[in-house]
Amino acid sequence: MAKHLQRDLAELKQKLLSVGRLVETATDKAILALVDRRPKLAQEVIEGDDVIDRLEVELEEDCLKVLALHQPVAVDLRFLVVVLKVNNDLERMGDLATSIAGRARYLAEHEPLHAPLGFPEMAGTVRQMVRQSLDALVEINTDLARQVLEQDDSVDQAHRRMFKFLQEQMKTAPATVDRAVHLMSSSRNLERIADLATNIAEDVVFMAEGEVIRHSFGSFRSREEEQGASQA
Amino acid sequence: MAKHLQRDLAELKQKLLSVGRLVETATDKAILALVDRRPKLAQEVIEGDDVIDRLEVELEEDCLKVLALHQPVAVDLRFLVVVLKVNNDLERMGDLATSIAGRARYLAEHEPLHAPLGFPEMAGTVRQMVRQSLDALVEINTDLARQVLEQDDSVDQAHRRMFKFLQEQMKTAPATVDRAVHLMSSSRNLERIADLATNIAEDVVFMAEGEVIRHSFGSFRSREEEQGASQA
Repeated sequence: MAKHLQRDLAELKQKLLSVGRLVETATDKAILALVDRRPKLAQEVIEGDDVIDRLEVELEEDCLKVLALHQPVAVDLRFLVVVLKVNNDLERMGDLATSIAGRARYLAEHEPLHAPLGFPEMAGTVRQMVRQSLDALVEINTDLARQVLEQDDSVDQAHRRMFKFLQEQMKTAPATVDRAVHLMSSSRNLERIADLATNIAEDVVFMAEGEVIRHSFGSFRSREEEQGASQA
Repeated sequence: MAKHLQRDLAELKQKLLSVGRLVETATDKAILALVDRRPKLAQEVIEGDDVIDRLEVELEEDCLKVLALHQPVAVDLRFLVVVLKVNNDLERMGDLATSIAGRARYLAEHEPLHAPLGFPEMAGTVRQMVRQSLDALVEINTDLARQVLEQDDSVDQAHRRMFKFLQEQMKTAPATVDRAVHLMSSSRNLERIADLATNIAEDVVFMAEGEVIRHSFGSFRSREEEQGASQA
């Protein structure tokens, strides 16, 4: 029985990773489509979202079956709950990547709009957060998970700079309004993808250490810093 | 044992409802603060979000305890998974209400901005969807849940009208840009609250009928219509 449970859990993990890789690829492509103005690439992302949606529903059903069949406890139960949550987060990330792709397609078909310095870097950080949060999950690597958490602030800052910049541009050049609104939405969606990668990283820490760190990253970080200071 | 499980499940339901009522109130207040320009009311919402965040973490821990202790199966297991998901959705709704409140506070402190006809109605529909999705959950009422699903389209349409209207306004009156951006974000956050109420309604249907209807509401509705036609 325990052996069967471990086999089923390993299978769930593989399926979650497959969804994760699809979402990672969708995010990558959506960002490239946006930054490099590639409408065909954007179209691929839009057409691929149905697959992610279908796999999410299947994986949730699989989780319920494993819960009902094996009635896992302790660490296995916690793992299953994390799979359910991450599955949900991944599906939302897929939706956001699709939304970015739609805006990338629009923007690629119109005159380029000047974006603030650092936007490709922001997009690169989001890609990295998505990849690292999934790797942290596979390896149950809390160091890597914490690296994801540390990057979220820089994405938030870049997003705020983007908003400020585009607001000013719309005031001085009304002809840019439509494109600026699409770029603002893209920036917001990127920031939300980073938030969801942060959720996954928090869940990895929760799974590994049983510690709920969401809503308290500030205090968590200061605890970390205190520990660092006391070790120095 | 079974009796203890039923008692614990009833307790979880009560706790979920308490969070739900807090989120409902926060959404109501945020919308009133926005529509009626009431910064103090907005401030109340902002200050109350910590409570919702804390209760969400507690409720998730409670769910894990009940899962580990009673190892429920079938309908009870499904109920617990729905509680976990709805809990997550409610916390996000609380965040969105808080974000609307922040923008309501800004807008109340600046000259009023003309919004398209139908905006108070959109906000009213979102309030109703939140309330009805929670009522549907308490009563496990799938008719009410389906009413929530049917309202989502009108919110999406109102949101698109709002965006279009504000984009035009920004082009002709650059001085409105900052306020228009806040109003756009408020409209988007309202639309996302409606999406989350839709998620909850879908979960109610799933719990009651074991049918996953998300990502397929179009086909679900046409099945309904076919049934209606065949009964006529």
